[in-house]
Amino acid sequence: MSSHNAFRARLNAKFDAMKNILVIGAGRSATVLIQYFLNNAEAQNWHLTVGDISAELCEKKIGGHPRGRAIAFDVFNAEQRKAELSKADIVVSMLPASMHIELARECVDLGKHLTTASYISKEMKALDEAAKAKNVVLLNETGLDPGIDHLSAMNLLDEIRENGGEIEHFESFTGGLVAPESDDNPWNYKFTWNPRNVVLASQGGAVKFIHNGKYKYIPYHRVFRRTEYITIEGHGEFEGYANRDSLSYREVYGLHSVKTLYRGTLRKPGFSRSWNAFVQLGMTDDTYVMEDSETMTNREFINSFLPFSLRDSVELKLRAMLKLDQDDRLMEKLQWLGLFDKTVIGLKNATPAQILQHILEKKWSMKPDDKDMIVMWHKIGFIKNGQKFVTESSMVVKGDDQENTAMAKTVGFPLAIATRMILEGQITDRGVLLPLSKNVYQPVLAELSKNGISFKEKTYQVEEFTT
Amino acid sequence: MSSHNAFRARLNAKFDAMKNILVIGAGRSATVLIQYFLNNAEAQNWHLTVGDISAELCEKKIGGHPRGRAIAFDVFNAEQRKAELSKADIVVSMLPASMHIELARECVDLGKHLTTASYISKEMKALDEAAKAKNVVLLNETGLDPGIDHLSAMNLLDEIRENGGEIEHFESFTGGLVAPESDDNPWNYKFTWNPRNVVLASQGGAVKFIHNGKYKYIPYHRVFRRTEYITIEGHGEFEGYANRDSLSYREVYGLHSVKTLYRGTLRKPGFSRSWNAFVQLGMTDDTYVMEDSETMTNREFINSFLPFSLRDSVELKLRAMLKLDQDDRLMEKLQWLGLFDKTVIGLKNATPAQILQHILEKKWSMKPDDKDMIVMWHKIGFIKNGQKFVTESSMVVKGDDQENTAMAKTVGFPLAIATRMILEGQITDRGVLLPLSKNVYQPVLAELSKNGISFKEKTYQVEEFTT
Repeated sequence: MSSHNAFRARLNAKFDAMKNILVIGAGRSATVLIQYFLNNAEAQNWHLTVGDISAELCEKKIGGHPRGRAIAFDVFNAEQRKAELSKADIVVSMLPASMHIELARECVDLGKHLTTASYISKEMKALDEAAKAKNVVLLNETGLDPGIDHLSAMNLLDEIRENGGEIEHFESFTGGLVAPESDDNPWNYKFTWNPRNVVLASQGGAVKFIHNGKYKYIPYHRVFRRTEYITIEGHGEFEGYANRDSLSYREVYGLHSVKTLYRGTLRKPGFSRSWNAFVQLGMTDDTYVMEDSETMTNREFINSFLPFSLRDSVELKLRAMLKLDQDDRLMEKLQWLGLFDKTVIGLKNATPAQILQHILEKKWSMKPDDKDMIVMWHKIGFIKNGQKFVTESSMVVKGDDQENTAMAKTVGFPLAIATRMILEGQITDRGVLLPLSKNVYQPVLAELSKNGISFKEKTYQVEEFTT
Repeated sequence: MSSHNAFRARLNAKFDAMKNILVIGAGRSATVLIQYFLNNAEAQNWHLTVGDISAELCEKKIGGHPRGRAIAFDVFNAEQRKAELSKADIVVSMLPASMHIELARECVDLGKHLTTASYISKEMKALDEAAKAKNVVLLNETGLDPGIDHLSAMNLLDEIRENGGEIEHFESFTGGLVAPESDDNPWNYKFTWNPRNVVLASQGGAVKFIHNGKYKYIPYHRVFRRTEYITIEGHGEFEGYANRDSLSYREVYGLHSVKTLYRGTLRKPGFSRSWNAFVQLGMTDDTYVMEDSETMTNREFINSFLPFSLRDSVELKLRAMLKLDQDDRLMEKLQWLGLFDKTVIGLKNATPAQILQHILEKKWSMKPDDKDMIVMWHKIGFIKNGQKFVTESSMVVKGDDQENTAMAKTVGFPLAIATRMILEGQITDRGVLLPLSKNVYQPVLAELSKNGISFKEKTYQVEEFTT
């Protein structure tokens, strides 16, 4: 749709019937999303309902806006769910991914559109026909990662292909980090998002990717030792470790002749080597409960993973196992976390991963004035007129405060913008969708840019894509 | 039961009605078992039926013995299964462990005894009441490991406890190895038993044990780097790596005040360090299928787990990853296996573990004249009159040939002897049983000893049980 048409659609909306938006989940990540709907409610003739287990949280987010309504909402209450879905024109779900399939089925039944920032499950995919039959859109993966990664990657890929480039190399990394001005600990890391996901990162199956035409596999216990260094102008050095399955993106992005396909997660340099200590010890295991976890101290926790010795200290045994020199700064990092302290853990029937998370949360939590930062980086290698070129594209977004975090902005804006586009009739496809087509990613990226979420690109010629 | 009573029971058997024994499974491990029943059939007035998918195999094992009958037997054919079970007085199953529960249920229904060399499952345990009500014995874990380990451990533990010793330390290791006279490869190892179990050893959950009163956990990727050296007089050095769950033996063996409890698997020294290379690379993973596994070469297989490099060799990348010196003998071991060769693997849709097994089977298979060897070792520490003592007990059994292997003997004899004892009325307990009581383990150990399966013990005073 041209921007002229978009303008006319927006203008017409005023004279249309009022549209009801139902947002489910009012947690930290929903702040920017809710604000977007409220800011545009008058002009667009929208009414917004925000439902969460905590009605108080919904009220706080709506802040008395005349076009907003806060409700205590229990997604497992079938009666209430049906009543609220029936009133809505579109549902925006911030629920955990696993809860989306039931909601999606009901949206299809009731003929309501649904947007989420979660990965499409097999079950969700299977609703495609039914959704089309009901003239319904189920738009998924429209947050940050998945979300902005798709939008920005497809934008670059399509442009290169339209200009006659053949894509051989695709790398993409995203990281949720602490902003440099709030980076005041030896790990250069704080929990800016779900701590459990950080502790369990890369578990559940070997990493799979392609590198120069060769399939490559990394077992979990080696993932944090196979990192890549990345420099982003003006923001310094980062390191990336591999995400689990990169291969599925070959089809999604139409990268049929790609020889390198690698997706990963960004951290500040040194993080992965240090995190690897936890992996090597077995502290990230979430599959069994430790004996006496409630009365155990931090020091006993670490000692559980080290060989018994009548005389040697926990510190020495750890250094021997990890082959660390006496002055290796990893020891400082572990000491700073209090891992060698005799603090009682106090968690009943806890797994190693739960105990580790508990210890990390005491030290890696964001302070009230801390700001987070989202970094995304793509590297695309292509051949044009027989020559090899690389395009690098990077996005760095910082949070304003604890409410308007970089995470809330980069998840909330794309989801809100795409929701608006469905309401305005700018997205005419029906069924189970990803934000991969130009008529979606172009207007979303354009509006993201106006909200401070933009990419810097550079293209240069190379001898080889990889070394 | 006294040996006098046992003698009388055996004498009486001649005048009793003939007893029918049904052995299910005529594979390599059943040879000695079947021979035992045939050798005693006349004296005991037994008739033996051996059923296997291959009737030919049954016939070969029975060798025309007048009291033997070979049948093609399909355990999934309900009609045949019921007909054969109905004719039997006792069923001896050599089926895989997972197939025992259905068989056990039917044995209880039909009022037939069952003996196996498999671990008791939860489902099997749940049949206890029903079996008792039907006056039926379901005797499990009566082979080698589980089996002889239980018999010999309980024999030692009971004796120490009866003499006033308090047990604080229990270690037990078993290994299926190649006999020294057939040990002609750089790994000092061949497959003498199920290769798949060897490749998947220690997977499926963290290792758990107690060491000097402290719970210890080892993640899978560290198991083969936390080994213990063991010397057995007259047989040299061995190394042991930990089995998955040692903690459950605390209750089974009544080791309520034990401070160290550790069970493991024996190999020749150096094996674990070399095997660890496969674990570190990710080659033992059985959870995903590799792309192009059919056309891949051995060299490409190993390269799949190494970082890409335009110029470096697979050998150098491997050394760099495993931090091996140029003259590390591990490289020889890997070369000897043909891992760097361009041999095509030829397995469709195979997992890394399946491919590794395929490569190993070409080199680690037993030659026609090769002999296997079973080694078992217990170390029990106890306090008596305020002083600390250690009893070590070891068993080494060699195979005679490819039929009468050490494995077939050490699995077959205890199972056959216990089966005889049930038929003779020497085992009077009913329900789901383990061979843990003195009236079972004493006569079985005595008869094992007559068949060359015996333990050597030594007891000495120590300062500490552990260092």
